Amino acid sequence: MRLADEAVGATDLGGTRLRVALIDREGRLLCREEMPTLADAGPEQAMERLSAALEQMRAQTSPVHLRGMGLALPGPLDPDTGMLHHPPNLPGWHGFSPKRYLAERLSLHVLANNDANLAALGEHRYGFGRGLRHLVFVIWGTGIGGGLILDGRLYEGVNGFAGEVGHLVVEPDGPRCGCGGQGCLEALASGQAMARRARELVEAGRQGDLLRREVDGDLQRISVESLVKADLLGDPVARKVLEDGAAYLGVGLATLWHTLDPELVVLGGGVSHILHRALPIVRREARRHAMTTFRGNPPPLLPSQLGDDAGLLGAAALVWGWLEGA
Amino acid sequence: MRLADEAVGATDLGGTRLRVALIDREGRLLCREEMPTLADAGPEQAMERLSAALEQMRAQTSPVHLRGMGLALPGPLDPDTGMLHHPPNLPGWHGFSPKRYLAERLSLHVLANNDANLAALGEHRYGFGRGLRHLVFVIWGTGIGGGLILDGRLYEGVNGFAGEVGHLVVEPDGPRCGCGGQGCLEALASGQAMARRARELVEAGRQGDLLRREVDGDLQRISVESLVKADLLGDPVARKVLEDGAAYLGVGLATLWHTLDPELVVLGGGVSHILHRALPIVRREARRHAMTTFRGNPPPLLPSQLGDDAGLLGAAALVWGWLEGA
Repeated sequence: MRLADEAVGATDLGGTRLRVALIDREGRLLCREEMPTLADAGPEQAMERLSAALEQMRAQTSPVHLRGMGLALPGPLDPDTGMLHHPPNLPGWHGFSPKRYLAERLSLHVLANNDANLAALGEHRYGFGRGLRHLVFVIWGTGIGGGLILDGRLYEGVNGFAGEVGHLVVEPDGPRCGCGGQGCLEALASGQAMARRARELVEAGRQGDLLRREVDGDLQRISVESLVKADLLGDPVARKVLEDGAAYLGVGLATLWHTLDPELVVLGGGVSHILHRALPIVRREARRHAMTTFRGNPPPLLPSQLGDDAGLLGAAALVWGWLEGA
Repeated sequence: MRLADEAVGATDLGGTRLRVALIDREGRLLCREEMPTLADAGPEQAMERLSAALEQMRAQTSPVHLRGMGLALPGPLDPDTGMLHHPPNLPGWHGFSPKRYLAERLSLHVLANNDANLAALGEHRYGFGRGLRHLVFVIWGTGIGGGLILDGRLYEGVNGFAGEVGHLVVEPDGPRCGCGGQGCLEALASGQAMARRARELVEAGRQGDLLRREVDGDLQRISVESLVKADLLGDPVARKVLEDGAAYLGVGLATLWHTLDPELVVLGGGVSHILHRALPIVRREARRHAMTTFRGNPPPLLPSQLGDDAGLLGAAALVWGWLEGA
């Protein structure tokens, strides 16, 4: 394989981890580094560490020419200025533009978008979505997000808020959602929602002894990971909570089929390590709520081929697409 | 205004009515005719009456040059062959292609699509959607359908099933839907669903005397029209059924905002004569279920500017768009 003579920088900036890589046109990671975000220390500190890592990579990979930089950012931002808008996972970063900061600091052309949109873009260029026209990427993690590729391009809607699949309304009288709405998929099926519900059920005294033991009696520590472990041990609370979450995801999936008639739905995000448990339930519930035509021939549902690198590769895809005039 | 020297034929073929018109590039109806479909008499009979009407219009408007013909058809069809696929409102027409029949009979280039998609296309070219990029058209009638204009073009999905907004799942444990699914918007808020529910409530003896009187005691005759009349007279069953239907439509609307972030949502269809009653409820419920960003600045929701002619004008828009190479 010929070595690349050109690359782009790519960063996936999460609330806890910050990843940076140099990526060639074919999506090969020439080098990568991961570090804690340390969001509380403020944006400049993180940007300086990121910049230093990138400069070091640039030196290491010389004479590879760096064509630009892509940024996957958590939560809402202004796509033009790259300015973050009250990012829930980066408290104190409101109004800061990593895009502008890095463009000046590194003298590179920098493009930014939110991580869910870029995960979709990455999967479309480098993952299971290659060559497909219509792809939905669902991030099933602490929250639930998503990105849409329609007619081969990232679809963002008029204000950049399209693809908010965590806020499909799946239970009109369901719990309030952090977004301001009610009965959203995220309020019922996200990692956070499932952990909260398990906590409530155990507190209400409904069995859950195995789950309680899993977190050494500290119910605040209940997470998707502990739910999965307790479920494997046969805990009925853990089982019910996971199954209900997966079922709601299936309901949302049917709505996505009927709205977008996609070629493929890809599932990524932190809850994806329960996919072996969840996927059959998700598929069953989606089909139960689907039109006959989709029930007989449902769009494939796959775990992301890019896994945790979907956002990083999406950041690279954003820049390569821009360079190619897409 | 200069008279057109070119026009296209347009047909909106419904289960009960068949409309045909000659329409110029600016969306002016040069002449129009409406007749009963008489679906039971079979497709050839209807096609012959339609063809005769069109030939007569052609003669009347000579020397206007007829550039092609557009067909709005009810329900599922193969977009290439135009062959109808078990159309619920045209029993016995399965496997028949009005497109092919008319192309041969009239020696015209004929394009066809379903009426909901074409209503969206019509509203985008000739109605409130002019110049907008992202538009959702919701047909609220006996059933609930829809069409999507995304990035300025009709979005159909991979199999042509996109925009089935009647089958957003809004109540996972709700009633079975005629589509094969469960808890769909159509099963809860369509004209048919509202009439059925009112019937059930009256039969169960829950008030509804005014509604019962409205249909002379024949509960099978309960329709959206009689619901509206009874509601105006203060009937509590009619009021509850209409308000619940509108509320579910609002829930579906919030899901559409979060998925597509549209510039405009247009409401058409036969239930639209209750819009003065329904719109405030639809808007309220959509906002109640919406993310803060949409709640503060919801996409406008308007009754179709084209009214009952949305499908007809959409059929014309389909042909003009094709002639213009769109």
